[in-house]
Amino acid sequence: MLSRTARLTSAQCGFIGLGNMGGFMANNLLASGTSVAAFDLSQASLDAVASAGGVPVTSVADLKDCETIITMLPSSPHVEETVGTLLDAGWKGKLFIDSSTIDPITSKSLAGKLQSSGIGAIDAPVSGGVKGAEAGTLTFMVGGSSSDLEAARPHLEVMGANVIHCGDNGAGQSTKLCNNLAMGIQMVGVVEAINMGTKLGLDAKTLASVMNTSTSRCWSSENYNPFPGVCENVPASRDYNNGFGVSLMLKDLKLATHAAGSVRSPTPLGNLTKEIYAMCEDQGMGEKDFGVVIDFLNQKK
Amino acid sequence: MLSRTARLTSAQCGFIGLGNMGGFMANNLLASGTSVAAFDLSQASLDAVASAGGVPVTSVADLKDCETIITMLPSSPHVEETVGTLLDAGWKGKLFIDSSTIDPITSKSLAGKLQSSGIGAIDAPVSGGVKGAEAGTLTFMVGGSSSDLEAARPHLEVMGANVIHCGDNGAGQSTKLCNNLAMGIQMVGVVEAINMGTKLGLDAKTLASVMNTSTSRCWSSENYNPFPGVCENVPASRDYNNGFGVSLMLKDLKLATHAAGSVRSPTPLGNLTKEIYAMCEDQGMGEKDFGVVIDFLNQKK
Amino acid sequence: MLSRTARLTSAQCGFIGLGNMGGFMANNLLASGTSVAAFDLSQASLDAVASAGGVPVTSVADLKDCETIITMLPSSPHVEETVGTLLDAGWKGKLFIDSSTIDPITSKSLAGKLQSSGIGAIDAPVSGGVKGAEAGTLTFMVGGSSSDLEAARPHLEVMGANVIHCGDNGAGQSTKLCNNLAMGIQMVGVVEAINMGTKLGLDAKTLASVMNTSTSRCWSSENYNPFPGVCENVPASRDYNNGFGVSLMLKDLKLATHAAGSVRSPTPLGNLTKEIYAMCEDQGMGEKDFGVVIDFLNQKK
Amino acid sequence: MLSRTARLTSAQCGFIGLGNMGGFMANNLLASGTSVAAFDLSQASLDAVASAGGVPVTSVADLKDCETIITMLPSSPHVEETVGTLLDAGWKGKLFIDSSTIDPITSKSLAGKLQSSGIGAIDAPVSGGVKGAEAGTLTFMVGGSSSDLEAARPHLEVMGANVIHCGDNGAGQSTKLCNNLAMGIQMVGVVEAINMGTKLGLDAKTLASVMNTSTSRCWSSENYNPFPGVCENVPASRDYNNGFGVSLMLKDLKLATHAAGSVRSPTPLGNLTKEIYAMCEDQGMGEKDFGVVIDFLNQKK
Repeated sequence: MLSRTARLTSAQCGFIGLGNMGGFMANNLLASGTSVAAFDLSQASLDAVASAGGVPVTSVADLKDCETIITMLPSSPHVEETVGTLLDAGWKGKLFIDSSTIDPITSKSLAGKLQSSGIGAIDAPVSGGVKGAEAGTLTFMVGGSSSDLEAARPHLEVMGANVIHCGDNGAGQSTKLCNNLAMGIQMVGVVEAINMGTKLGLDAKTLASVMNTSTSRCWSSENYNPFPGVCENVPASRDYNNGFGVSLMLKDLKLATHAAGSVRSPTPLGNLTKEIYAMCEDQGMGEKDFGVVIDFLNQKK
Repeated sequence: MLSRTARLTSAQCGFIGLGNMGGFMANNLLASGTSVAAFDLSQASLDAVASAGGVPVTSVADLKDCETIITMLPSSPHVEETVGTLLDAGWKGKLFIDSSTIDPITSKSLAGKLQSSGIGAIDAPVSGGVKGAEAGTLTFMVGGSSSDLEAARPHLEVMGANVIHCGDNGAGQSTKLCNNLAMGIQMVGVVEAINMGTKLGLDAKTLASVMNTSTSRCWSSENYNPFPGVCENVPASRDYNNGFGVSLMLKDLKLATHAAGSVRSPTPLGNLTKEIYAMCEDQGMGEKDFGVVIDFLNQKK
Repeated sequence: MLSRTARLTSAQCGFIGLGNMGGFMANNLLASGTSVAAFDLSQASLDAVASAGGVPVTSVADLKDCETIITMLPSSPHVEETVGTLLDAGWKGKLFIDSSTIDPITSKSLAGKLQSSGIGAIDAPVSGGVKGAEAGTLTFMVGGSSSDLEAARPHLEVMGANVIHCGDNGAGQSTKLCNNLAMGIQMVGVVEAINMGTKLGLDAKTLASVMNTSTSRCWSSENYNPFPGVCENVPASRDYNNGFGVSLMLKDLKLATHAAGSVRSPTPLGNLTKEIYAMCEDQGMGEKDFGVVIDFLNQKK
Repeated sequence: MLSRTARLTSAQCGFIGLGNMGGFMANNLLASGTSVAAFDLSQASLDAVASAGGVPVTSVADLKDCETIITMLPSSPHVEETVGTLLDAGWKGKLFIDSSTIDPITSKSLAGKLQSSGIGAIDAPVSGGVKGAEAGTLTFMVGGSSSDLEAARPHLEVMGANVIHCGDNGAGQSTKLCNNLAMGIQMVGVVEAINMGTKLGLDAKTLASVMNTSTSRCWSSENYNPFPGVCENVPASRDYNNGFGVSLMLKDLKLATHAAGSVRSPTPLGNLTKEIYAMCEDQGMGEKDFGVVIDFLNQKK
């Protein structure tokens, strides 16, 4: 234990949240030679990070001597609580990097709190999924000052392939939510079109090839088509397993429509899409890829 | 008049419907050396086709000796009436090419009627807009037999750059409607996202650049962004003029949702998008490009 | 056969369409002493009307000597075909009463056709359901001239309890569609509220009693509550059997939204409600009462 | 000041929030002989309550000696802050009555906090509007224990005509939100129907009379019809002034859809209705009665 504490003191990064994404991100940090102390509620995750060379700790406060802390947590309250705990524990680090997807207003407010304690803060939510986390090819959408972004860059470039500066604190979260709002709507739109087309007698692959070279071309149709067999190696071709889950899409649509409401920006399609994914989740599709909405719209009996 | 009739008898193509699109399509046929007799209700359009070397006629029945007849008309009833008039007039041509966007079920039924009179028929609606019609770069989405498509191909390749065989009669129309259904939904989705993003303080160009390299990438964002100034030379950057009009999008969404209903394929987003465009039209935006929906969602007072 | 023809000649009413509603309506006419000749495609229905004292006929044209003809048919094309057959058969009656629910524009156009043959015509769709048809307590929503309405009144008052003059030809249909559009929306609204309330821990009966004495009071909550056990003797309390079927509601919502579209009247909630009922039908709930939408929104797995 | 404090100490009720509703409610308490000390941020409101015989105070903490405290505040954070201030000030009263409309989960949590300090608590949101507040005919929807309700009843019966026990703490709020969710949807449904009907040529009064005796009967049609001239003395007949404002309806729909989401209860129509009212507010209709949505759907240009 003593030796661990010794190592802990000198850890460059504290990492909080070793879930599907966070575990791989911490591994990539460790593989680059960064010393990492990590916290998670799951013992299995702590064991895994230890076997990869990291230092598992049993409380957030144990990370109070880390220079940089990176969080990858499920929701706003988790990040709020974590920041509170760190500040209460007397954390005097240099930089807080939050890669969770949370409410942009909360994100901005937490950054202010940290900055008034003399700590830099950026929001850096990601796109690229579990595969991108494993391969270290994530895209980081960053909100914060240029100097904080530059301080974070060495760590970000170990975990991802693209770092985009979106604006001030909160702008990373806002950008992520805009992207996922549009993506969720587009997926349901592609589903409605391809479902209707095949019922009208069209071949799904032919229809997709026309759409993909025409004015309804989009990522959900071209790279991630929800109709089984159109794209290879996508969730639709493996019963919607191992994709971007309905519950995660629903979470992001809730954040996005809430953020939109707070700035009085109407999202009629976004709200309806949210309700559709809520019904999918209710029907037991929460873990399935969000392209599974084609089954929801199409459950003939 | 006599000489005209003489020329008319030998005209290879009869063209019906010399509107914004049809006028340019007829011109391209003429420019390729095809002899064309043409009908339209507008005298100005008839004069224009005459000055381009075509033979204007004053009734559909006057085209009864043409080998091929091409239609570019506003709606199903116009095409139905035209086919009726041609058959009543004793038309014994070889091929009917309908480039109008109409209901796929009507399209299939008209093809059956023509075929039982020994005349080939394809549906060949287009994408590419007025610019594509003028430049001869349209994409034709074709429904019908391979042999009818091959018979039509020389004419289609004069008017367009791409000819895609989508399936049997009606399949061209179905494909067009699927594409435009998805496109309409995607445009509103992009509008909701970029409108919310800018209200949250993001820069529209930065946001678009992230979306366009990420999972919400789509034609409406990348090539035709509805936020003024993001793309050059698109309707959003010229007050939504000279684009794909709200009324045309509404017409296609009505056709698409009706076709979907007829095969019991749910389109919740498609129906809501249709209503949104109907309200845009009511508010006087019918002639504006369909990206103008951002103004509809954003009319602060 | 001869005697039947003799009776047929003097029949006051021809009745076409002896379904769930029409059968009872014909019975009530017969019970009042009216002579009735009737046509239906189902032999069982013809046998039933015969045993009630009516004259079954085997074709619509057999009714050509009836003074008044009443139709109770599933959809616009059925009524159009019937009117065509009657006029072709040389029907020279006095009055055509259409109690089907059809498109108001078709209804108006058929009335014009009949009137130009010297025959009076009203549209008289009903509310009150199968029970009202059996009990003779239907409400008739009538479109047409006052004189045609007065000519029809003796028959209508035998089959129903209320006769409301809604306006010129087509106005009965328009009124029926307005009512059913609002009713469909209200039912889904009540379902959303009571479903949410019970999940928040409220007692359904208590909640309904507050709503029914407050500003969300409506027929769907007060007289036909969709939550099992709140009202006695309603479909919700017998597994949604023997009510107003989802498929019928869907049919009326299609007619209503189509009519709204034709006069450029936006119905965003109506269109979404239509899609919801279309999905219910797809899931095998077509024959269940339209309150069953609570099961659709609530299918936890 | 001393005499005021003397009176204050013995005040039976502290009242916080003297807005449109709260001012009249405090007046009715005073008129019944109850001694009332009151707080509001507006000096004009404090002056008014003083001239009606109440004791104005300049901070919430000044009410710490009141036996009962009644709140009528705009939103959850106001109530949370008020309870915090009171407890911090050492309030040792008997009963907290919150008549604000707030989130049921917050309401329940605040009640728990008060109860653990030995103070009874009920949520008692109202229906009946400004007129009901003035006339003392409000309906209170109460959540809490029977004994707390009985303790509150004398005060409630002075301010209202109906007191309904809806369940445990939070149940009053839940009931109010269910009612207003259904009401908002019903209003838009009535608007869609009557707007379509009049465009189809129906007379609005005739149509409403049929609806009101048929299956689309509801409070929004019968007692509060949104079409000008159908009902007398309703906002629609005075340019939508002095009614239940769009912004208030929007606030309640946000609370309702948020509460629904928290218990995973789908509200597709509720969410769309919320977006419609959000757009109405954006267009400057925030202060107009919520029936004004007919103008929103109908803004022909």
